[in-house]
Amino acid sequence: MKLHARSRTARPSNTRLSPLLAAALAVGLALPLSAGAADSAKPRSMQEILDATKPGDWRALDPRDTLYLDLPRGRVVIELAPEFAPQHATNIRALARNGYWNKLSINRSQDNFVVQWGDPAEDDKSRKPLGKGTKAKLPAEFERSSDKLPFHVLPDPDGWAPQVGFADGFPAARDTGAKRAWLAHCYGMVGAGRDVAADSSNGTELYVVIGQSPRQLDRNITVVGRVVQGMELLSVLPRGTGPLGFYENPAQRVPITSIRLAADVAKKDRVAIEVLRTDSAAFDEIIESRRNRRDEWYKHPAGHIDLCNVPLPTRETPAAAPAPAKGKSKSK
Amino acid sequence: MKLHARSRTARPSNTRLSPLLAAALAVGLALPLSAGAADSAKPRSMQEILDATKPGDWRALDPRDTLYLDLPRGRVVIELAPEFAPQHATNIRALARNGYWNKLSINRSQDNFVVQWGDPAEDDKSRKPLGKGTKAKLPAEFERSSDKLPFHVLPDPDGWAPQVGFADGFPAARDTGAKRAWLAHCYGMVGAGRDVAADSSNGTELYVVIGQSPRQLDRNITVVGRVVQGMELLSVLPRGTGPLGFYENPAQRVPITSIRLAADVAKKDRVAIEVLRTDSAAFDEIIESRRNRRDEWYKHPAGHIDLCNVPLPTRETPAAAPAPAKGKSKSK
Repeated sequence: MKLHARSRTARPSNTRLSPLLAAALAVGLALPLSAGAADSAKPRSMQEILDATKPGDWRALDPRDTLYLDLPRGRVVIELAPEFAPQHATNIRALARNGYWNKLSINRSQDNFVVQWGDPAEDDKSRKPLGKGTKAKLPAEFERSSDKLPFHVLPDPDGWAPQVGFADGFPAARDTGAKRAWLAHCYGMVGAGRDVAADSSNGTELYVVIGQSPRQLDRNITVVGRVVQGMELLSVLPRGTGPLGFYENPAQRVPITSIRLAADVAKKDRVAIEVLRTDSAAFDEIIESRRNRRDEWYKHPAGHIDLCNVPLPTRETPAAAPAPAKGKSKSK
Repeated sequence: MKLHARSRTARPSNTRLSPLLAAALAVGLALPLSAGAADSAKPRSMQEILDATKPGDWRALDPRDTLYLDLPRGRVVIELAPEFAPQHATNIRALARNGYWNKLSINRSQDNFVVQWGDPAEDDKSRKPLGKGTKAKLPAEFERSSDKLPFHVLPDPDGWAPQVGFADGFPAARDTGAKRAWLAHCYGMVGAGRDVAADSSNGTELYVVIGQSPRQLDRNITVVGRVVQGMELLSVLPRGTGPLGFYENPAQRVPITSIRLAADVAKKDRVAIEVLRTDSAAFDEIIESRRNRRDEWYKHPAGHIDLCNVPLPTRETPAAAPAPAKGKSKSK
């Protein structure tokens, strides 16, 4: 029996990691499980599927829907979801343009729940003004009509919603009877904090899910997007010891260098990120490869996957290129 | 509209946190949502339910099944699961008694997946000996017979298993047709890394889940217990940049001061932790309070909960007391 420590892992170690997958790993994806050539009789590994994708299987992030949250330790890239939260997206773009978050901070880190940033001022009077072109109050955008919304259905059942899958590239849920659709609180999803009133958010206080998917928040708060790169900069922040994981001592807060819309950043300073299209055949093949792991390490393939366990592969392209309009996913 | 930053959160802010709940929060539980007195017409909040528990609703951790993982920044407390992994528990107790992990390290931190510790030596020859009373190889303990195993069933369906619930205080799954039961990979669960062969683990390389529950690992690897206190010391460790989240530079590894069995630690140096019994009425009431949040912040109670979203409340008791034998949960 081999006792190499590095091979004694929760996953097999005979894994060849490509730079492409490194980005995927950053958001917690599972690993490619065989390195050999594809064999038509044998399902392909995630790595093999990704290696065989064509440029059209990927979409570039739209700079108008992309936020750069720059921290002293690096950059977090967030994709906004204007198809689900158009008014929040508009306000967030304006807030970013106004430099609203610059020099504000991350104020909360609650284990297995969320990291949250915004204005730590508790006193209304010392609160930072939101600046021009912004609204101080927005309607609840918890869900939307499912009419005219391409929805790529996941084959497996979900306990929280009648149907789950992917819409506009995000993990989502749908109720075809009520004709409503909404985004799901998976790891890395970003939402807009609010008070008790449903319409009390304005997009200034944003949180990101850092633990087990808190799906009970679905349809209760406006989800505005997701982190596509840099999750590991947020998920490791020391947990706050105050109520709800807020930092008790202001010195514990993590300063925000800036939050900018990618469209407002010089092209040479942008990160060129592509996301695998959720309406591509490659994405479906990846889902199946995760539903039933066929490598020799797994002895009992699950035959199931939960929405929030589905990987959403991303890759950095060598040179920044103008992003085309975001593609719509096909209904299924 | 009030704009207090601290009240703009993913959860309501009118929350009174008791010291008792602080421990629960450390493992990511949700929050009590009303501070008023219980009203028979109104479902009680989690805090109200916990406040009304009786001593018999709690069980003390058995020191023979409790590990203290001491790190430079504090103590992580792990409860072993000998009902599911008896041979692994036996080996782990012997390894702890031998001081096997002392001066070894945490070698892996993979975002949204696991943190793992053990012997970083890649060369068999320089590998630390396991010491007396240990076995170098153990059988797979992925599942067990469900006969004679009290199993407290969760009312909601699960996509990964025919039935889920709680057995011996742990989140578990069951197949009554096949008469098998197994532990579930929820946040904070601890497992024993292995090679490709099912029987290649020996309990030296342990990992803890730090993200979305990787339930695809269920029945594929031996789960040995769960973290009941100190998760926030593990979940925030910087992510490794090597394959599988291993630290590429040995200097990045986190030294382990020691891992000891609580029974081998002087009573004055033990942490007296109690866990809410999963066969108590209070636990069922908490589950229902989480399935349907009835406070004014929630506009759309989910009517559902996933196994890995169920809180497992713990509390520290003021003085260490001898632990009674662990109670069995009733069938339901």
